[in-house]
Amino acid sequence: MSTSLTRTETLSLLSLSAACIGIIANTFQGDGEPLIASLAFSGLAFSLSFGMIRWLGDVFMKAGLKGKDMSKLRSVEIPECMGAVCAIVYLLVLIIFIPFPFYKDIVAATSGGGNRDRVFEPELVELVETGRLLHKFPHNKLASYLSAILSLQSIVLLGVGDDLFDIRWRHKVLIPAFASIPMLIVYFVDFGVTSIVIPTPLRPYFGSLFDLGSLYYLYMAALAIFAPNSINILAGINGIEVSQSLCIAFLILLNDLLYLLPFSSPPHPATDSHLFSLYLLLPFIGVSLALLYHNTYPARVFVGDTYCYFAGMVFAVDGILGHFSKTLWLLLMPQVFNFVYSAPQLFHLVPCPRHRLPRFNARTGLLEPSVAEFKKPLARPIQMGMKLLHSLYLLRIKEDEKGNVIESTNFTIINLWLVWFGPMREDKLCISLTVFQACCGLVGLFIRHRLALWVFTQDNK
Amino acid sequence: MSTSLTRTETLSLLSLSAACIGIIANTFQGDGEPLIASLAFSGLAFSLSFGMIRWLGDVFMKAGLKGKDMSKLRSVEIPECMGAVCAIVYLLVLIIFIPFPFYKDIVAATSGGGNRDRVFEPELVELVETGRLLHKFPHNKLASYLSAILSLQSIVLLGVGDDLFDIRWRHKVLIPAFASIPMLIVYFVDFGVTSIVIPTPLRPYFGSLFDLGSLYYLYMAALAIFAPNSINILAGINGIEVSQSLCIAFLILLNDLLYLLPFSSPPHPATDSHLFSLYLLLPFIGVSLALLYHNTYPARVFVGDTYCYFAGMVFAVDGILGHFSKTLWLLLMPQVFNFVYSAPQLFHLVPCPRHRLPRFNARTGLLEPSVAEFKKPLARPIQMGMKLLHSLYLLRIKEDEKGNVIESTNFTIINLWLVWFGPMREDKLCISLTVFQACCGLVGLFIRHRLALWVFTQDNK
Repeated sequence: MSTSLTRTETLSLLSLSAACIGIIANTFQGDGEPLIASLAFSGLAFSLSFGMIRWLGDVFMKAGLKGKDMSKLRSVEIPECMGAVCAIVYLLVLIIFIPFPFYKDIVAATSGGGNRDRVFEPELVELVETGRLLHKFPHNKLASYLSAILSLQSIVLLGVGDDLFDIRWRHKVLIPAFASIPMLIVYFVDFGVTSIVIPTPLRPYFGSLFDLGSLYYLYMAALAIFAPNSINILAGINGIEVSQSLCIAFLILLNDLLYLLPFSSPPHPATDSHLFSLYLLLPFIGVSLALLYHNTYPARVFVGDTYCYFAGMVFAVDGILGHFSKTLWLLLMPQVFNFVYSAPQLFHLVPCPRHRLPRFNARTGLLEPSVAEFKKPLARPIQMGMKLLHSLYLLRIKEDEKGNVIESTNFTIINLWLVWFGPMREDKLCISLTVFQACCGLVGLFIRHRLALWVFTQDNK
Repeated sequence: MSTSLTRTETLSLLSLSAACIGIIANTFQGDGEPLIASLAFSGLAFSLSFGMIRWLGDVFMKAGLKGKDMSKLRSVEIPECMGAVCAIVYLLVLIIFIPFPFYKDIVAATSGGGNRDRVFEPELVELVETGRLLHKFPHNKLASYLSAILSLQSIVLLGVGDDLFDIRWRHKVLIPAFASIPMLIVYFVDFGVTSIVIPTPLRPYFGSLFDLGSLYYLYMAALAIFAPNSINILAGINGIEVSQSLCIAFLILLNDLLYLLPFSSPPHPATDSHLFSLYLLLPFIGVSLALLYHNTYPARVFVGDTYCYFAGMVFAVDGILGHFSKTLWLLLMPQVFNFVYSAPQLFHLVPCPRHRLPRFNARTGLLEPSVAEFKKPLARPIQMGMKLLHSLYLLRIKEDEKGNVIESTNFTIINLWLVWFGPMREDKLCISLTVFQACCGLVGLFIRHRLALWVFTQDNK
């Protein structure tokens, strides 16, 4: 892969960046509209990560961060772990963006354009000398924004550690748990709301609110552990990690817009939460598009575990601090299915080979379901379960003459897709799975916004 | 190096950890005294980093993070970049510590022991559904604590990048600049105090306060860039990076105690700032002691650039958010001298060899000043400057018969020390430099607390 940008690419990226910088400068003139600024920052994030992915390719290869693509005829080595570059660009943008959502408050605190509150001077000396000059300010929002960045940065730091050192699977699972600590602790310190609204039919038994207490923190931790890991196990073919993440991001975006678009006055009470969600999401979409361009079939870079963790954590943080974690579960249905479906192999009920990615057939150029072979006959109940799955078209098994299962396709949604629709080329596989993800998500959003009124007194929307 | 703990070490670390956990649990019973909890957390940080440095040695070597000690008779490879382990333990402890400084406020907000404010229930449902249940809370302090963690985590992330990829010197310098962005932005959003108190003799001309405006941010950024880089260039012999950092940390600790110890009532107005400083400092001392044990002569691990950046950033963040940045400069005098003294080589006025660490004399086992040799005669003014330094005992040069300077010792305080006191063993060199640092710092603190009243109307103390 060339490590420099073509002339067209350079020109496009430069003009995009210039336009974005212009827009950002303009928001200072007007009301400092943070959503516009966020969009512009996302454009910058796209340009910067696009360039850096290209420029850093060689540097990564030299540092040993490289891998072989096993599903190609000629397997060349390409840079690995490029998701870390995107993640760092994303974090940088998020940090520089900090003042924007608070622009109005800053202007208010500086009493209209640059001059701080006029305080009697000797008093001001006193205040400055003791460091006590504070303004009224939505510090709670700032704290939750900072905790979001902190959690995301933690997962990137730990994710890079995972990409560098081969951490064992059972330790890896807990990386997101560590990374979610900042967010959970600030949630504890800051909101402490652990009550959930009880669905109408159950109110006679539980009351209208039920305080989950510390269980609520377990629930949030579970989401923060699940989302990154679920994206990490739905992986293995060019582009799938980024395209599923982008698909989920766009679905969350759609959900946010459903709250924000009907510009009603007074605005919807959850407006702030969903704006917050967009501020986290838009730059993510920016860096992911740049990564997708390089990771799509035929991949010129790999994304690395860092990206999967990072993407999942963006969703978890967004869902928890944006207060739509239940909706998020609906958007993660394919990931939930893949995790449940994978469970027999993950928990070693069924032998699990080192890699479960589809098998590349060099003759046809197509991907086929990969299989696990069983030298020793499996336990009776497990064999029966597998035969049941086979008859439900949820697995493809081979039996020997005695009726023992000697081979089955690996338990991932990617292999199942190939069982259902037959061998296909890598890019078609990735696209069709992403379309499937999008359809599931749209159904989920429909359920969320149309059917939720059946069980709750009011829709948040 | 053995990668497991001896039985004695295991027992000591386990009992220390148990005692610390006991103390932490106890603070929940009483007033939740955060300073005691911070001390206990620092003990835990020590144990954890001590263990992890030992356990991860092999893993780091396998991942290629290793280096050769050039100042030993038998040069074996030892793990490099172990400072990153300490830094991550430190960050984890700092994150888990978040609720402790706010314990009283949390108890107050939950109206005395676990129950949240009693709100009329339907109203509460409304509040929960819109996510608006907030308490009075010192969110501004929380935000500045979070921004400190964020800046420290940023520097660790970028420092690891530097240790992995050989980043060029002129790019490296800017790493702390990026990492200080979160702190500076939150400072901007949160305090915005950019006025400085003018010394009494100058008040007739400038008034009692002078608003530095954006210059103040440049000043803070300069400190945040200087502190990490200055520690990174005072390096090269076993233990020096950690021992100078520990020395500075203990001096800051002493300065903080000068504000906190005379338990006057009402407490000193800067009490909170200096408590904040201690919360950042104590765990740093914990992890650094564990690292020093392994890095001291003869070193069994190297610390890596990550540690130097990380240590310097701890001081910068501590000084800026604890509002004692002027005092910090006084404590960094040896680093300032080393930087100024190094400048001719850093800016290539005088040729700079790849490594400037002292030369190991295998015959005597002692370190001698390393030298730069000049094949081409240097410019006249530079030669004159070097001769002047030589006559002031600030350099040792060699001249040829024509009076041209053909060789000089390298421009670092470590080499200068060897010029002054003659060749010495690596450990003696490290210890004597650390003692020098301590003496300079004590003089600095004396100036700060005894002589400052000559130029300011009041001492902050």
